[in-house]
Amino acid sequence: MSRLAEICAGITPPDAEVAARTQRRLDFKTKPRRSLGRLEDLACQYAAIRRDEQPALPEKAIIVMGADHGVAARGVSAYPQEVTAQMLENFAAGGAAINVLARHAGARVVVVDIGVLRPVVNARIESARVAAGTADLSVGPAMSSAQAEAAIDVGLAHVERLHAQGVSVVGLGEMGIGNTTSASALTALLTGCSPEEVTGFGTGIDDAARARKVQLIQRALALHALDPQQPLAALASLGGLEIAGLVGVVLGAASRRMAVVLDGFIASTAALIAVRMAPAAQGYLVPSHRSVEAGHRALLRELQAVPLFEFDMRLGEGSGAALAMTLLDAAVKILLEMATFESAGVTDAGA
Amino acid sequence: MSRLAEICAGITPPDAEVAARTQRRLDFKTKPRRSLGRLEDLACQYAAIRRDEQPALPEKAIIVMGADHGVAARGVSAYPQEVTAQMLENFAAGGAAINVLARHAGARVVVVDIGVLRPVVNARIESARVAAGTADLSVGPAMSSAQAEAAIDVGLAHVERLHAQGVSVVGLGEMGIGNTTSASALTALLTGCSPEEVTGFGTGIDDAARARKVQLIQRALALHALDPQQPLAALASLGGLEIAGLVGVVLGAASRRMAVVLDGFIASTAALIAVRMAPAAQGYLVPSHRSVEAGHRALLRELQAVPLFEFDMRLGEGSGAALAMTLLDAAVKILLEMATFESAGVTDAGA
Repeated sequence: MSRLAEICAGITPPDAEVAARTQRRLDFKTKPRRSLGRLEDLACQYAAIRRDEQPALPEKAIIVMGADHGVAARGVSAYPQEVTAQMLENFAAGGAAINVLARHAGARVVVVDIGVLRPVVNARIESARVAAGTADLSVGPAMSSAQAEAAIDVGLAHVERLHAQGVSVVGLGEMGIGNTTSASALTALLTGCSPEEVTGFGTGIDDAARARKVQLIQRALALHALDPQQPLAALASLGGLEIAGLVGVVLGAASRRMAVVLDGFIASTAALIAVRMAPAAQGYLVPSHRSVEAGHRALLRELQAVPLFEFDMRLGEGSGAALAMTLLDAAVKILLEMATFESAGVTDAGA
Repeated sequence: MSRLAEICAGITPPDAEVAARTQRRLDFKTKPRRSLGRLEDLACQYAAIRRDEQPALPEKAIIVMGADHGVAARGVSAYPQEVTAQMLENFAAGGAAINVLARHAGARVVVVDIGVLRPVVNARIESARVAAGTADLSVGPAMSSAQAEAAIDVGLAHVERLHAQGVSVVGLGEMGIGNTTSASALTALLTGCSPEEVTGFGTGIDDAARARKVQLIQRALALHALDPQQPLAALASLGGLEIAGLVGVVLGAASRRMAVVLDGFIASTAALIAVRMAPAAQGYLVPSHRSVEAGHRALLRELQAVPLFEFDMRLGEGSGAALAMTLLDAAVKILLEMATFESAGVTDAGA
C-alpha cells in the first residue's frame, strides 16, 4: 500500500461517544437545553475530533496554497495570470483580506507556492513547487499522476509540521487565477451536475466569458472521459496544484485529528476529493460560508455540510474559513467557560 | 414636545453619501469588487452610522436588561420566575453564555436590574428599578404609561453614559422569565400576524403549554384593543420593563450615532417599537441571527433586517449580538487594514 493509501485507510471518524458526552456537559450549563443551537453542535464536533470533551482552545492556521493554471490562457478569468504571484506577495506582506481576517481570528497564515508560473521568492512564502503551473486542462491532463501525488504530499507535509507545532485547526485557503474553471470541471464530474449548473462568474467575468467557460468545461470533460469513482485520476486531469495540495491538507489533518475549516468553492472541491478518497475525513470538516459561486451549493450538499453563514462572498484565500474560526472558538469557549446550573445556583427546569 | 419626542425627532438616518464613499474605498482593496459581500455592506453601514469613511474600530458594549413579568404566574415558561434574578447574578459573576461570548467579542457587559421581582443586590449590577416586575398583561396593562416611559429613560441614560465613555456599538440583551409572551403579543399587534404565527416555545415549553400561551395572548389582545399605530401605548399594555429599557437603548444609540446590534426575538421586538417611534433609527440596526422563536421571522421582515446567520439559537441575553459583533469588527478591519491594488502592486482587472 502506498503512503497516501495508508494515510487514507488510517483515518477514523471523530468519536461519537465523546460528542454525546460533550452534549451532556453542555446540558448542565446555565441555559435552556440546546438553546445555543449550532454553537453547541460545533463544540461537540470539535470535542469529538479531538477525542476530548474538554479540549484546549483551538490553535489555528490557515494554509493558503497558490498555483497557476494553464487554462488561464483561454481567457476564463477577469484577471491576468500574473495576479497569482502578486497576490502571494500581498499575503506575505500582510495586506490581503486573508491577513486581516486571520489576524482577527487569531490564526497564523501559511503561504505556499506550490506551482506559480514564475517562482515567488519571499522569505515569508514557503517554496514547495511541484511544477510551473498546470497544463491547459482543455487540451490534455492538467497534471501527471505523479505531479498530483507530489502536490498532495506537499499538503500532507505542511499539516504534519503544523501538527507538530500544536496546531489543532486548519483552514483551507487558495489563490490561483483560473482555478474556478478547474473546480467547476471537478465539481461537475464528482457531483454529476452539468457544467452549466456548477460554473459561475469567478472573479467577475461577464455572461459571454462564462458561456465560453461552460463550453470549455464541457469539451474538457468529453476529452478526458474520467470515472467519477477515481478521484485521484480526476484531480490529475482537471485539478490545480493548489487544489491537490489542499486535498493533502484535508487528509493529513483528518489523520492527525485536527479540524478542517472549509472555505469557498475551490477549497470545498479539494475537500470533496479528499472525502471521496477517505470517507471518514468528512467528520473533520467544519463548514464556513456558502459562496455565490454557482457550484458551491452542489459541493456542500455532497459534503453534507450546512454552511454557517451566507455572506455573498466569492474571494477564496481562506477568508470564509477565518470568519468561521471565530465562531468555532466561541463554541469551544462556551464549553470551557460557562457555569453550570449547580455552580451558579440557578434553578434548572430539567431538574 | 417631551424629551422622548425630541430625541425621536432628532434621529437622522446614517449618511448614505459616506456609505457610497466607503464602498469606493473598498473597491480599491486587493480583491475583486464586492467579493466580500455582506462584510462590505457591514463596513459601509458602520461608516455611514459614524459619518466617517475611516471609522475607529468599534468600542463595544452589550446592555442586558433584566425584569420580571406578571404573566409568568400563568405558567407560560419552563422556568420558575426566580431564575430572572439568579441569572442576573450569574451575569454579574461572569458565568453565563453572554459573558463568554462578550469576552470573545471584546465587548463589555452592562447588567441592569430594571424591574426584577425582588431587588438584585450586587455591585456588578446596575440598579435602575422602575417597578417590582410588570403586572399580568392578561388581566390588565402590564405597565402604566409613566412606567413605560421611565423604563425607556433608563435605557436612554445607560446609552448616554456608554457614549460618553467612547462606546460606538451597543448590543441588545435581555433576561426575563415570561418575556416571550410579552414579545409575542407585541409582535402580533405590530406586525398584524396572528398570535398563532408568532408564538413559540420560549425556553422550552411543551405543545399544551404553547397552546395556552397562544390563547392567553389572543385574550390579552382582545382585552386591550390597542392601536398598532401607537407603539408607546402598546409597549405599556403588553411590554416588559426590559423591553421598554431596550427601546430606550435603541433610540439613545441612534440619536448618538452608535450602531445597535440586534439579538433574538425579545430584543428585536424592542427594536421594532423603537423604529415605529422613530423610523430613522432603522439604519442603525445591525442584524445578528434569526432565532428559532416563531415570531422572529416576522419581526426581522418588518425591520428589513436580513440576519447574518441562523444558528437555531433561542437564548437571548445578547448572545447573538455578541457573535455578530465579531463579524462587524471583521468588516471594519477589512476597511481599515487591507492594502489597495496600488499599494500592493497588484494588477487590477478594473484598471
